[in-house]
Amino acid sequence: MTVYLVGAGPGDPDLLTRKADRLLAKADVVVHDRLVSPEIMELVAPWATRIDVGKDPNGSSVPQEEINRILVELGQTDGLIVRLKGGDPFVLGRGGEEAAALELAGISYGVVPGVTSAVAAPAAAGIPVTHRGVSSGFIVLTGFQNPNGKRPLDWEALARLEMTLIILMGAAQAPRIRGHLLDAGADPRTDVAIVYKATTADQETTRTKLRDLGNQKIKNPSVIVIGPAAGLEFAGSNEGSAEQQQILSNLGVPAWQ
Amino acid sequence: MTVYLVGAGPGDPDLLTRKADRLLAKADVVVHDRLVSPEIMELVAPWATRIDVGKDPNGSSVPQEEINRILVELGQTDGLIVRLKGGDPFVLGRGGEEAAALELAGISYGVVPGVTSAVAAPAAAGIPVTHRGVSSGFIVLTGFQNPNGKRPLDWEALARLEMTLIILMGAAQAPRIRGHLLDAGADPRTDVAIVYKATTADQETTRTKLRDLGNQKIKNPSVIVIGPAAGLEFAGSNEGSAEQQQILSNLGVPAWQ
Repeated sequence: MTVYLVGAGPGDPDLLTRKADRLLAKADVVVHDRLVSPEIMELVAPWATRIDVGKDPNGSSVPQEEINRILVELGQTDGLIVRLKGGDPFVLGRGGEEAAALELAGISYGVVPGVTSAVAAPAAAGIPVTHRGVSSGFIVLTGFQNPNGKRPLDWEALARLEMTLIILMGAAQAPRIRGHLLDAGADPRTDVAIVYKATTADQETTRTKLRDLGNQKIKNPSVIVIGPAAGLEFAGSNEGSAEQQQILSNLGVPAWQ
Repeated sequence: MTVYLVGAGPGDPDLLTRKADRLLAKADVVVHDRLVSPEIMELVAPWATRIDVGKDPNGSSVPQEEINRILVELGQTDGLIVRLKGGDPFVLGRGGEEAAALELAGISYGVVPGVTSAVAAPAAAGIPVTHRGVSSGFIVLTGFQNPNGKRPLDWEALARLEMTLIILMGAAQAPRIRGHLLDAGADPRTDVAIVYKATTADQETTRTKLRDLGNQKIKNPSVIVIGPAAGLEFAGSNEGSAEQQQILSNLGVPAWQ
């Protein structure tokens, strides 16, 4: 097995898996995204080759077909190749396409799951994506919608489910997302949290309501969380516990239940 | 900070995070679930106290209120307490309730995200929860529905979204889930994968169609994956690549795209 598709987690090097850590230390070549933090790249052995195929949502980047081609070519060498992707390789990261390319080229590969930003970014802001009596499930989707997709996203169904909605790569689409959800009947007072660079030293959380989503500039990379759970904040200390109790009480949830 | 709510990942000790690994080695007390594998418990220091609060979906277990009470009591000691939970603490693991209990008791705590089984169990069976042209998002929910929930789950909306549906703790509910989805208009030929004990030596994957879900006995713990992505199998070798290409081709997805 020569190529590993490896999840790098949300940013904090401590949230790498043990397997990812070991593979990075041993890799001959690391093909990485823009979203992989410099602190994580420091774990790569000094003699390893680094190839940055980072995608910028606003412009120039290495096309996916070219990334696939690079991986197939590297996979034909004797080295240990790590394809390092922010979060988890199969969560909106096009890891499946890279796996397909390797498989069709007859190159053996492995997939190493990572801590997905879809769950860890809300958690870093104190938000549980599920919470009994508040949200019994969650939905993860991308802000980019494929214009060639078979059919448009069913916003009405999304709004009806009343689950925590987690949007990755949605910064530029925030006003459009607000419009779709409000048109679909979502409550304008629904809680929203925007978590920028979660689990890194630069992390910032903005809390707002659905009616105001997109009124502020949202920086990349941010995770947008929409739903009653986005109003929670388990901050890790007893500061604000009265407020927390009030939030849960407003939602009809006894905090102790 | 004395109590850490820590995700143990899907089962494979190599999928623990570096932070979880370090905390387990240093912990004075580890309060763990049934879903945490014995291999992971071996990473706990020999002198640490282990408290098993494992919940069995079929019966006797430590009630959540009692777990909360244990954590609050331990949090008042000087030791380092790890509350170790299968997968991620905030994904259907009632971690939010434990955080709320600690916060209301004035005990500082931290949350350490883990690799969620919702994503890693499908990946271990070769299934990407998202794949361009196949599924642009995914939905995670529990097979247990709270009978005191404010309203029943909107299966019709779930069926309409055509995203990958991932059901945790759904083994006993499989026939009911099939019934709800078929009643809601889902295609009976929709692909289904059932992944038992993902990422462990005992892993087994059963592939079927929605119309047959629940006709077989499903063992705990299993993750049920429903949707076109559940028909994919990126197996890590070139075996079956022709079949893979056929599946993608049937879905109208060029594998290289």
